Amino acid sequence: MIKVGIVGGTGYTGVELLRLLAQHPQVHIEAITSRSEAGMPVAEMFPSLRGKLDLKFVTPEAANLNQCDAVFFATPHGVAMSQAKALLAADVKILDLAADFRLKDPAEFEQWYGMPHACPEILAEAVYGLPEINRAAIQQARVIGLAGCYPTSVQLGLAPLLAPSNNQAGALVDSEHIIADAKSGTSGAGRKAEIGTLLAEASDNFKAYAVKGHRHLPEITQGLKAIAGHEQIALTFVPHLTPMIRGIHATIYARLTAHGMTEDYQQLYENYYRDEPFVDVMPAGSHPETRSVRGSNNIRIALHRPVNGDTLVILVVEDNLVKGASGQGVQCLNLMFGLPETMGLEQIALLP
Amino acid sequence: MIKVGIVGGTGYTGVELLRLLAQHPQVHIEAITSRSEAGMPVAEMFPSLRGKLDLKFVTPEAANLNQCDAVFFATPHGVAMSQAKALLAADVKILDLAADFRLKDPAEFEQWYGMPHACPEILAEAVYGLPEINRAAIQQARVIGLAGCYPTSVQLGLAPLLAPSNNQAGALVDSEHIIADAKSGTSGAGRKAEIGTLLAEASDNFKAYAVKGHRHLPEITQGLKAIAGHEQIALTFVPHLTPMIRGIHATIYARLTAHGMTEDYQQLYENYYRDEPFVDVMPAGSHPETRSVRGSNNIRIALHRPVNGDTLVILVVEDNLVKGASGQGVQCLNLMFGLPETMGLEQIALLP
Amino acid sequence: MIKVGIVGGTGYTGVELLRLLAQHPQVHIEAITSRSEAGMPVAEMFPSLRGKLDLKFVTPEAANLNQCDAVFFATPHGVAMSQAKALLAADVKILDLAADFRLKDPAEFEQWYGMPHACPEILAEAVYGLPEINRAAIQQARVIGLAGCYPTSVQLGLAPLLAPSNNQAGALVDSEHIIADAKSGTSGAGRKAEIGTLLAEASDNFKAYAVKGHRHLPEITQGLKAIAGHEQIALTFVPHLTPMIRGIHATIYARLTAHGMTEDYQQLYENYYRDEPFVDVMPAGSHPETRSVRGSNNIRIALHRPVNGDTLVILVVEDNLVKGASGQGVQCLNLMFGLPETMGLEQIALLP
Amino acid sequence: MIKVGIVGGTGYTGVELLRLLAQHPQVHIEAITSRSEAGMPVAEMFPSLRGKLDLKFVTPEAANLNQCDAVFFATPHGVAMSQAKALLAADVKILDLAADFRLKDPAEFEQWYGMPHACPEILAEAVYGLPEINRAAIQQARVIGLAGCYPTSVQLGLAPLLAPSNNQAGALVDSEHIIADAKSGTSGAGRKAEIGTLLAEASDNFKAYAVKGHRHLPEITQGLKAIAGHEQIALTFVPHLTPMIRGIHATIYARLTAHGMTEDYQQLYENYYRDEPFVDVMPAGSHPETRSVRGSNNIRIALHRPVNGDTLVILVVEDNLVKGASGQGVQCLNLMFGLPETMGLEQIALLP
Repeated sequence: MIKVGIVGGTGYTGVELLRLLAQHPQVHIEAITSRSEAGMPVAEMFPSLRGKLDLKFVTPEAANLNQCDAVFFATPHGVAMSQAKALLAADVKILDLAADFRLKDPAEFEQWYGMPHACPEILAEAVYGLPEINRAAIQQARVIGLAGCYPTSVQLGLAPLLAPSNNQAGALVDSEHIIADAKSGTSGAGRKAEIGTLLAEASDNFKAYAVKGHRHLPEITQGLKAIAGHEQIALTFVPHLTPMIRGIHATIYARLTAHGMTEDYQQLYENYYRDEPFVDVMPAGSHPETRSVRGSNNIRIALHRPVNGDTLVILVVEDNLVKGASGQGVQCLNLMFGLPETMGLEQIALLP
Repeated sequence: MIKVGIVGGTGYTGVELLRLLAQHPQVHIEAITSRSEAGMPVAEMFPSLRGKLDLKFVTPEAANLNQCDAVFFATPHGVAMSQAKALLAADVKILDLAADFRLKDPAEFEQWYGMPHACPEILAEAVYGLPEINRAAIQQARVIGLAGCYPTSVQLGLAPLLAPSNNQAGALVDSEHIIADAKSGTSGAGRKAEIGTLLAEASDNFKAYAVKGHRHLPEITQGLKAIAGHEQIALTFVPHLTPMIRGIHATIYARLTAHGMTEDYQQLYENYYRDEPFVDVMPAGSHPETRSVRGSNNIRIALHRPVNGDTLVILVVEDNLVKGASGQGVQCLNLMFGLPETMGLEQIALLP
Repeated sequence: MIKVGIVGGTGYTGVELLRLLAQHPQVHIEAITSRSEAGMPVAEMFPSLRGKLDLKFVTPEAANLNQCDAVFFATPHGVAMSQAKALLAADVKILDLAADFRLKDPAEFEQWYGMPHACPEILAEAVYGLPEINRAAIQQARVIGLAGCYPTSVQLGLAPLLAPSNNQAGALVDSEHIIADAKSGTSGAGRKAEIGTLLAEASDNFKAYAVKGHRHLPEITQGLKAIAGHEQIALTFVPHLTPMIRGIHATIYARLTAHGMTEDYQQLYENYYRDEPFVDVMPAGSHPETRSVRGSNNIRIALHRPVNGDTLVILVVEDNLVKGASGQGVQCLNLMFGLPETMGLEQIALLP
Repeated sequence: MIKVGIVGGTGYTGVELLRLLAQHPQVHIEAITSRSEAGMPVAEMFPSLRGKLDLKFVTPEAANLNQCDAVFFATPHGVAMSQAKALLAADVKILDLAADFRLKDPAEFEQWYGMPHACPEILAEAVYGLPEINRAAIQQARVIGLAGCYPTSVQLGLAPLLAPSNNQAGALVDSEHIIADAKSGTSGAGRKAEIGTLLAEASDNFKAYAVKGHRHLPEITQGLKAIAGHEQIALTFVPHLTPMIRGIHATIYARLTAHGMTEDYQQLYENYYRDEPFVDVMPAGSHPETRSVRGSNNIRIALHRPVNGDTLVILVVEDNLVKGASGQGVQCLNLMFGLPETMGLEQIALLP
């Protein structure tokens, strides 16, 4: 059994981790910390766990995280990097659900997250937690900066188009004018007391936000550059808030080059993801629905090329709390500890 | 492996059965029938099942249900009773999610469902599928009429109050003036094309319906009489439609007798359900939420006695498609075939 | 034109007042105060008002409320009573949307709201703002404590049953065992940053709350006693949170006395409310929907007597922000200033 | 008073017309037809109208539409064109909320709507009902083909960019690679019994649809060509279904030309719409919300140019049933009869 600790389990990625790990056959949850809720049974805060998990929040001091094999950070940005050094010294692997280990450039981190990076040397060794792109590195990693929710959907939606192996005879798309129009349920904003995501504000309503610039844009751009193997990547990324709890739907528009006009994209995507257990390339003409992945670690992709024109439309759905966060975390954990990648992640989506 | 067939799997109880049975370690789904959709992969209708279940709808003729060990009917009322005789003759056990085998009196069935009962002799041997009340009989049964969604919540909410063992020294409550104010998500209306349950009609809206008389009223009354062991049961039952997908919340009001004023109801309920794997009596003062059982087979109950007065308020939540339908079906199946009662039913509710 | 001021307009009752008053033909909004938002155009906080209302929040000091004819308090409990004396001295009429002037007994106010009453002498003269019950007094009043949202629905649902004129030959119902099972949209919790009413928490979910005791219970009880003209009133009141923005649905259960069994309640209610412009007694057998009053000042009532038994079921719907708050405020304002009662309140509900 | 008839008033655009016209000071609703519901009071189908509109559905034969000044068609496609000739002969003006008079080319109509056009000669004189573009022609028209819901948002979102007056010194944008990513509430699908828009299917869910080709695409393209005054228009249009009742949010992406890079688009849009009563160009950097126009005839637009790059992002919100349908119909009616354009259309959006 892998001994796992969770730092900061009172948010949505925390409770989702608990749901997944409580039934993972090779994981034992050693401790879950919350300074403010120390002493409270987790099942009191999250009654869905009553009878399923007999655990109380403890203070970080009492958690004895150094005894764990791995620790998840389901915390605000900045917490993981402050504790990483000590944990690594104790041979504990780290999986951060926040952004501390996503952006490779400490200056860029500081620009978008408003704080200097606490441990650039650990950042340098950290591996970006997106298994379909980075599997081998994840298997060897000590520190994982798990991919963000939007970035997971956009990168996996675009990877086959940008992968060098598919662009050897010439670029398929204009990689400097990609448009990603993404829609997220409100759980993406976290379990935080804020007016904007109250039901009375956000329900029966739809809006874009952060059009000027969202923190996930540099992460996506960095990821796409790594996938493509070149720097000629530019993206217009517009996130929207949609009145639902879970789910991200990314609608991605890529302009085909003259060379790219003759490619069979359905085939290209099916080949690229042929062996991926969690990526489902749907039949041509499909319209994936977010509910088809609700509560599951699957990501579904469908391709359209309206009027056979030069715009490829890629539709991607994921559950932002599973494949976009905690499920991906468990997937990485499995890889890091040599377990079957799908272990504990076989849940079927809840539909309706 | 138990060979299971499903008749009529295109509705919500059908897809929910598929979700549960596809991962049940001792069940093999032999066939799922739909005359209208024969030939279509089930995962095409329900994309949540893509990669999880490789099965097509077949016609009833092609299904070869006689080879099954058990057959579920996830059909409109009237279908199961028309096929029961032949299946029993072939030694196939029957679990009906519709109402054909719920009401013991054929005349009452005809009154409420508008059709004569096709096989009163089978009805006579059918067992009411509510394991917490009827476990022993279910273990021996050939035919199960699974309890309805509202009836499950109301009966389990009231059973400890009415059980003879708890009323030996005198009745605890006025059993002829019980009020059950129940609220259901719209999936309870089924996957049927109807205007009243369109999102644009039913969302951001709340209403009562069928106050004059709902088909579940005679079922509840029959069940409570059986539980109480006497006929002095009368109920005012008002169902409401609430703008959510899954979930039933029953708020039950019972007037205490003078004798009943001194009882400790928290203790009474905890004792009554002490060994039940799916019934959770919450701590005194709790307010159960429907989402705390979303997608799970649990039912949660909390008790209140405002201002220590003579009205006991019982709050009950369940997922109408799981404990109120398909999950309860699997629970009965487990009992009928000598499997652990919780097998395949350990899912943790999806929260948020 | 009546010069109106609004204290504390950043909540839901505030923006609803603005919506109604901005188009009221005899009202001029002089000032709206918010200490925290002073200087911000109201249309910046509430973009629905762009182009409709050219007004900025001002500090209370700058508002010059003494020059107004009337001032609304759309504030937390406790604010109105702290400013009432000065305003009255300046001949300004007061309409409080909070609870400062609802409960006539200062001790009871203190018990439920946790603060001593600041001006018991003004409380003594204050009139309860429920026009269908209190019209004449409202016309003469200087201070109105507007009825709460739940209390409006429950009192108007029960008034015909309890009115002395209808009980001269004997009581119709057991007035000491009334049950009011009420369901509210989440706007009833106000525009406050709280986790419990986030969309990700409260949507696709249903729960009761405050079963032990809700602040509206003493208000309802006080009101029903006044309506009935006697003290034999007791109520079990259970509020629920339903996943919608606006709307209250009260389901009220009253036990008929032997005498009450022969009454024609449909007729009784129609007579009682015959001349009320905002109360709609629907045809027998109706199921009112909250959306049928969304955005309007109407309240709709329907009556049922299941199986002609001794339980009368009264269904009541209102928009909690209109008839349950700001619309009722405007209705009272009209009465206080001798305007037609319906002026500015003729909006048709938004359906769908 | 203008005598108005409504053909087919049982859908959402029908009830919305009734809401608006019932309070229009210069309109009298002569008749509303529904063959299937003839004899039923409209307030029985739509209880929001109880006490506001005393009218019954009548058969088309009994409606005596020839006596009206104007007739609205709130019918399925194909009905208006079958009755247009007779009504025109009787000097009745026609406003069609369906698509019969939108596409100027009868062949294109037949291709997208699957039926030959019944009266190409009337189609030839029909005017496209989008007042901000076509005001003068509408004032003179006998027949209006009201703009569709999506087309209204996309055309008004793009008009300033494409208008010849703004492109004299060279094209501002690449008009052949416009992307319109649009999201609609489910009322856009109409009041039709269909599984796909049930609450249990469409709520807590998000999906694209008709990516291959939507009927509104040729309408938008035709409209943009007319606005631009040239044929070099091509659009990728992807509609999505979002779990809300009302509202459309269009996110439009236009690539700036080298010439277009120096333009001040905020100024350009504000100038273009300076005198429009229903078009609100929001301050730079705004994120319009659909609820800010819920129930109102306003359309709000905001402009963004992320990282000062060559992609202009235009955000547009409207209420699909008001500015996208019935409100626009009333606006056109006002123009056709010489009334103030805003008469009967001053409602403030319902927020929250």
